[in-house]
Amino acid sequence: MRAEIITVGTELLLGQTLDRHSAYLSQECSSLGIDVYFHTSVGDDARRLLEVIRIASSRSDLVLLCGGLGPTMDDLTKETLARFLKVNLIQDSASLAHLQKIFAGRSLPIPENNYKQTYVFPGGTVFPNENGTAPGLAITSAGITYVLMPGPPKELVPMFEHHVRPFLIGLLPEKQVIVSHPLSFFGIGESLLEKRLSDIIEQQTNPVIATYAKEAGVTLRLTAKARDDQAAHDLIAPVRAQILDRVGEYCFSEEDSSLEEVVVSLLRQQKRSIALAESCTGGLAAHLLSTVPGSSHTLKGGFVSYTDEVKNEIVHVPKQVLIEEGAISSAAAEAMAQQTRQQFQSDFALSITGVAGPDPAEGKPVGQVFVGLAEVHQPTRVYQYLLKGSRQRIQLLAAKHALFILQQRLKKGETTT
Amino acid sequence: MRAEIITVGTELLLGQTLDRHSAYLSQECSSLGIDVYFHTSVGDDARRLLEVIRIASSRSDLVLLCGGLGPTMDDLTKETLARFLKVNLIQDSASLAHLQKIFAGRSLPIPENNYKQTYVFPGGTVFPNENGTAPGLAITSAGITYVLMPGPPKELVPMFEHHVRPFLIGLLPEKQVIVSHPLSFFGIGESLLEKRLSDIIEQQTNPVIATYAKEAGVTLRLTAKARDDQAAHDLIAPVRAQILDRVGEYCFSEEDSSLEEVVVSLLRQQKRSIALAESCTGGLAAHLLSTVPGSSHTLKGGFVSYTDEVKNEIVHVPKQVLIEEGAISSAAAEAMAQQTRQQFQSDFALSITGVAGPDPAEGKPVGQVFVGLAEVHQPTRVYQYLLKGSRQRIQLLAAKHALFILQQRLKKGETTT
Repeated sequence: MRAEIITVGTELLLGQTLDRHSAYLSQECSSLGIDVYFHTSVGDDARRLLEVIRIASSRSDLVLLCGGLGPTMDDLTKETLARFLKVNLIQDSASLAHLQKIFAGRSLPIPENNYKQTYVFPGGTVFPNENGTAPGLAITSAGITYVLMPGPPKELVPMFEHHVRPFLIGLLPEKQVIVSHPLSFFGIGESLLEKRLSDIIEQQTNPVIATYAKEAGVTLRLTAKARDDQAAHDLIAPVRAQILDRVGEYCFSEEDSSLEEVVVSLLRQQKRSIALAESCTGGLAAHLLSTVPGSSHTLKGGFVSYTDEVKNEIVHVPKQVLIEEGAISSAAAEAMAQQTRQQFQSDFALSITGVAGPDPAEGKPVGQVFVGLAEVHQPTRVYQYLLKGSRQRIQLLAAKHALFILQQRLKKGETTT
Repeated sequence: MRAEIITVGTELLLGQTLDRHSAYLSQECSSLGIDVYFHTSVGDDARRLLEVIRIASSRSDLVLLCGGLGPTMDDLTKETLARFLKVNLIQDSASLAHLQKIFAGRSLPIPENNYKQTYVFPGGTVFPNENGTAPGLAITSAGITYVLMPGPPKELVPMFEHHVRPFLIGLLPEKQVIVSHPLSFFGIGESLLEKRLSDIIEQQTNPVIATYAKEAGVTLRLTAKARDDQAAHDLIAPVRAQILDRVGEYCFSEEDSSLEEVVVSLLRQQKRSIALAESCTGGLAAHLLSTVPGSSHTLKGGFVSYTDEVKNEIVHVPKQVLIEEGAISSAAAEAMAQQTRQQFQSDFALSITGVAGPDPAEGKPVGQVFVGLAEVHQPTRVYQYLLKGSRQRIQLLAAKHALFILQQRLKKGETTT
């Protein structure tokens, strides 16, 4: 079934209201196996709305319209669709009773213009509105089904869940299940990932493979359609295995988790603790871990050491290292990690020192970053990166690289980068 | 001018990504006097995208397209518009140089498919992308101007502000000057701010007053249209004064600066230094300051102290305070700030301790936060908040409240909250 969503309201076109309905209804349709091909927003204008309905009716089997069912003169959706379909609306006794009941409770007379909300399509379906006066409506004409829902989220969402979704399931030609499986990657760019998987991505039709660039990293989503859950999972399994065989070293989650969620979860499972010493990231890596509920069980804390003086006096990096190697060096990253682990008495310590920019420092280029990982009873390792982007982008990538290294060590006891 | 906005991406039609660009660009167009009549979202499908472009070209003078400028096979916006306009794209040497510069220093060569991002419309305009590889583009054909911008918000928003907005102003039919004056507020909600200014907002037509909810805080933008800059500024001045007279205590910037930028700027002007001790925010306040270029001149560093043990042994909060008052207390915030200032030998120290959630702690409710501000030769002050929202929201608000307090003290030598 080919569907589209039309949201009606001048406030959308002025940017005063964010259209959340289109995304919500698209997710719901996708989970039912209904393909949504277009979203359109149009103002409270009969001529333009009529044109949008005309275009939708020429290309879709199902048209979901949101908004414009209120009592005011601006609310035109139902009337405009009736004009397009050349039908006369009729009064619905259940909707009239509902309206009278709502106003009886308020001990107010019913405003004259509210009565227009009791008019419906002859031969159509009426969806009760549990949280307002405007009923939802559906009408099928020339093989195209139109569903009209009120604009306020508090009215639309419950109406969709309780009435419209069951109605849509009744329209489906065959019963299908849709299963999605995410694979989250870090340390490999979107275009390089696609290139290494291009033959798989191009050949696949079920599951389909889509890539999504995330704030840091890339997620692949494998989506299969089948008659039941097991059949969908059976379609996904070999494709998943093929992908992980090629680029599995970069995959950190199959549950749409963030790197910090994966790290906190692994630390908690292994009952190990972490402390951090951060220079160029200013506390971002520690903060990312702290965003995860329950992180207090594994995160002891950290140092933010922005000056050489602080690195020496508070973190206890030897003066000699700072003088001879500089604060942006492998030796400084190593000392920061070791000293921090000892001071915090933690199982692990991560250190980050580098040049976030915009200017080079200590003769090192913008983006040069050293990450140290100290572990109790293990040698400290230092990793070096040359990161690109704005100051904030370099900070984010540096913090995420540190978390990625720790994730690899926690998963395999070994890192590959 | 009649405009419409087209956002391109299958993730929009699956409901996986919320379209915020249409609302953002509509607000911006509205402030320029450009009427937006339609929003359309369409997937990464050449046939349907071509049809959407054809419809847009039949009814609008200005078509803003977002997304689909990436390096992958799915990214089709530019190619589809070129097909519709029957033009051949040409390679742009500046875009090629930009791409080469971005990849220079990475240990990887430029992926073959990234080169397609260097192709532009002959006779069109190229907008530099400060945060990515895809340039923005504009082309006018048959009286209709098409503007193409990349989909990621971090690329689109700066590109719009720095390049596309001035370009659109140049398209406006009558030579008018548009002057915008931002007023950034913190510590007062959007609806309360609107309520306190409702009479002013409703009566004003030139300048118009628009409110924008920001990540933390609210920005009012006064936008005046006049024949020249001076006349526009003269229209803005009395309205600005009237607003600041009512709610000036909450205003921290008239330059669209973030709180952290204002704080770093004030600290540098006054040649004073800062250190931090953070518990529930996990390093976020220090990190926010570190995102500002030049912050290393004033930010000495900080502690992240997630456990009582660390608060005592590393930050030097007396055991007695932790036992008698608890780690989430005014006394703990006071000791954290004082001890941190002494250890870092800084002019100021901010401390943050509280309950970010999702569960209460030490019998304190979720959202209870104490912020301490220590200053050399001054008594330490502690401020208490009850913040609302998710864990991450509470962390952000707590960090921003700490910065807001410091900003007030730096501006007036006095805080009002």
